[in-house]
Amino acid sequence: MQAEAREDNRERAAAGGIPFGPLQGLKVLDLSIIVAGGTASSLLADFGADVVKVERPGSGDPLRNWGPFANGVSLWWKVHSRNKKSLTLDLGKREGQALLLELAAQADVLIEGFRPGTLERWNLGPQQLHEANPGLVILRFSGFGQSGPYRDRPGFGTIAECMSGYIAMTGFPETPPVLPPIPLADEIAGVFGAMAGMMALYRRETAPSEMAAGESVAGDTEQGDTDGDTAIPKRRAGGQVIDLSLFEPLFRLCIPHLPMYDLLGIVRERVGNDFPDAAPRSLYRTGDQRWLGLSATSQSTWEALAQAMGLSHLLDDDRFGNNAARLENKDALNEELQGWLGDRPLDQILEKLVPAGGVVGPVYDSSQIINDPHYREREDVLEIDDPDLGRTIMPGVVPKFTATPGAVEYGGPRLGEHNSQVLGNWLDYDQERIQALEDSGVI
Amino acid sequence: MQAEAREDNRERAAAGGIPFGPLQGLKVLDLSIIVAGGTASSLLADFGADVVKVERPGSGDPLRNWGPFANGVSLWWKVHSRNKKSLTLDLGKREGQALLLELAAQADVLIEGFRPGTLERWNLGPQQLHEANPGLVILRFSGFGQSGPYRDRPGFGTIAECMSGYIAMTGFPETPPVLPPIPLADEIAGVFGAMAGMMALYRRETAPSEMAAGESVAGDTEQGDTDGDTAIPKRRAGGQVIDLSLFEPLFRLCIPHLPMYDLLGIVRERVGNDFPDAAPRSLYRTGDQRWLGLSATSQSTWEALAQAMGLSHLLDDDRFGNNAARLENKDALNEELQGWLGDRPLDQILEKLVPAGGVVGPVYDSSQIINDPHYREREDVLEIDDPDLGRTIMPGVVPKFTATPGAVEYGGPRLGEHNSQVLGNWLDYDQERIQALEDSGVI
Repeated sequence: MQAEAREDNRERAAAGGIPFGPLQGLKVLDLSIIVAGGTASSLLADFGADVVKVERPGSGDPLRNWGPFANGVSLWWKVHSRNKKSLTLDLGKREGQALLLELAAQADVLIEGFRPGTLERWNLGPQQLHEANPGLVILRFSGFGQSGPYRDRPGFGTIAECMSGYIAMTGFPETPPVLPPIPLADEIAGVFGAMAGMMALYRRETAPSEMAAGESVAGDTEQGDTDGDTAIPKRRAGGQVIDLSLFEPLFRLCIPHLPMYDLLGIVRERVGNDFPDAAPRSLYRTGDQRWLGLSATSQSTWEALAQAMGLSHLLDDDRFGNNAARLENKDALNEELQGWLGDRPLDQILEKLVPAGGVVGPVYDSSQIINDPHYREREDVLEIDDPDLGRTIMPGVVPKFTATPGAVEYGGPRLGEHNSQVLGNWLDYDQERIQALEDSGVI
Repeated sequence: MQAEAREDNRERAAAGGIPFGPLQGLKVLDLSIIVAGGTASSLLADFGADVVKVERPGSGDPLRNWGPFANGVSLWWKVHSRNKKSLTLDLGKREGQALLLELAAQADVLIEGFRPGTLERWNLGPQQLHEANPGLVILRFSGFGQSGPYRDRPGFGTIAECMSGYIAMTGFPETPPVLPPIPLADEIAGVFGAMAGMMALYRRETAPSEMAAGESVAGDTEQGDTDGDTAIPKRRAGGQVIDLSLFEPLFRLCIPHLPMYDLLGIVRERVGNDFPDAAPRSLYRTGDQRWLGLSATSQSTWEALAQAMGLSHLLDDDRFGNNAARLENKDALNEELQGWLGDRPLDQILEKLVPAGGVVGPVYDSSQIINDPHYREREDVLEIDDPDLGRTIMPGVVPKFTATPGAVEYGGPRLGEHNSQVLGNWLDYDQERIQALEDSGVI
């Protein structure tokens, strides 16, 4: 039934030309470059928001230069900027700044990722933006945030990951710590940004009177607009700034480590693939040289696993009888499991253990994901027809909404592809005016 | 000014007894266990939602048994369940199920993380929940999602990480792939859940008429409720189910790897700490045996770095002149940098490179984070006074909202601590009725 609902919505979306997501009608200006802000706007765009990527004329978002390329086009850009509109705009020019304020007056969300102080230098800081639109939700991404002693330091995700506490715990004791294989800090900051932006919008919609009367006191949110206007007052007030650093979201997800150190003096170190609090949990090598994840951290999953492997004698072994014993004899336990798993090919292992409830799964790379029936059935491997690349596979929309599932309409646009459309639709500019802006290098 | 606004709000929140966040008044029922659903509800609770954690009488959320412990209390639980209320409720009992429906009728969001089919077996599936409350947004967490051939497999984060594509790329070529040091898949799924839940709520609030008239067609969202009622219609309709697996959110963040394989045949492999597309970017060992992250992936940051190090002769070296050359001679470049960095203690390196705009930062563990002035000034190291633990340090609220910053009121509650409060406030139950439920083991 869920799949049917999605299909049905997809058709409707196709007919209307707009992805049918929960954010239909939401207007987003994304001034940021590279990954973090673009992750936030990418998720909003997946779910139907009207996202305009504001890019520097001529060069555009540097993400366009991130390899690898196909037909000269960045695959990062194609995926990350899907569903977005590209508008070129020179924010260093006065005319560009004025135009940005006109657009901001129409927007619900503005995303930026310049060094702290840059927007202000352009006279486009929160004060000016909120004068143009008191309801604007402003997401500010930066390496270290808008305050604090490190605010002016250049912020790259790698440094954020290092300082978040995450990297010190990642890897094996005998090798260096390991950095993530994707821009993890940036992307998690981006997801936090999309989440926080939606929270601020929810607040704005459900408590519209809060700041309209010049107040900012909590508790009077029940006062509606009773001046006889029957339309729900929208975007009248209630915007705010959300300050997103790259280091804090990943730090926030390292849940218990601060009190562990503070109360118990424990500094979590690198322990490789063993889980510090339960065993077995690790990666193992299969007979056909694949990697397999295995987790049997509760007593019942451990017992089911040992039985399914035909190793039930391990259950009677004092070294493995309960979790504490298994933790103490982790190396011996891993050796037993590796022995069994190393004798068999991956497929055979899965066939034997999965039906028995074993918590196991293969380490997949892209070549395996693309052919996996579960990924396919859940529409996670999505095919679009792209004007630059032809038939192109990319990740589907995640997560899955039953009523308003969102959709991918098209891949990352060409630079300035939507100049006329955006200035026409958002601001009613005619073609002559748009041409003049182009001629003067403003767009 | 931001800090002042936050302080001011904090005082107001203290006076009202409610964290002053954007979600004040939002009611959330969290039936899930362990990490994923709890991450979503934790973020909602940080920002002022009224989150009720529904726990099994007697044992509660298994997260309570996750070590390490202080004074017998799980530090995972203390942080992850902060600001939440604990209500015990036996969902296997008919009376418990009826009570859950009464609560769901009052809620905005319901979070669950049982194996697919479990809620339905209890007659608490989406159909029954939406009969009780058509506006309910239901977040369903599971290992593999509610559909697809693997839906019935037990889902643990480790397996999700393995199958997401992330793990195959993590680590050094000469060592096994590396699992994350935190329940990364679960937590990212949780953040996606909070984000998606807010999107669905936004949709519900801004398009309230959509489903009320039995319609579900897009495009008529401008029709307000014009039946003379001046109050904004709330929670009348528009709820939906959001299906969150553990493997998909992390997969979604591996942005370009599917088209890379599909169009170019590239399967990204483990490359350790070097960045495949730009150099230098790696971790280096300092003279005092600390680790340092360094990233100089653009030409200008590379030049600034080499000059600040007094290694400007490298800029004239053909092997390092541009990014392509640096990538080709990565090992030689890393050796040059490691030589310089390995001769100096961390503090001295930072003193020299940071003012010159060098993109460098230390690999921090908890003991270093807790004393860092930037973390302190941004209120990321938060101190609460806990009845079980006394003075306790935990991560602050992330990200930073200027107008409605949220707050941490208290750490994870005792089992059933809020039974009377929740049943009294949400359902107007009197003490006698609550006592009867306790006596019969329903709560």
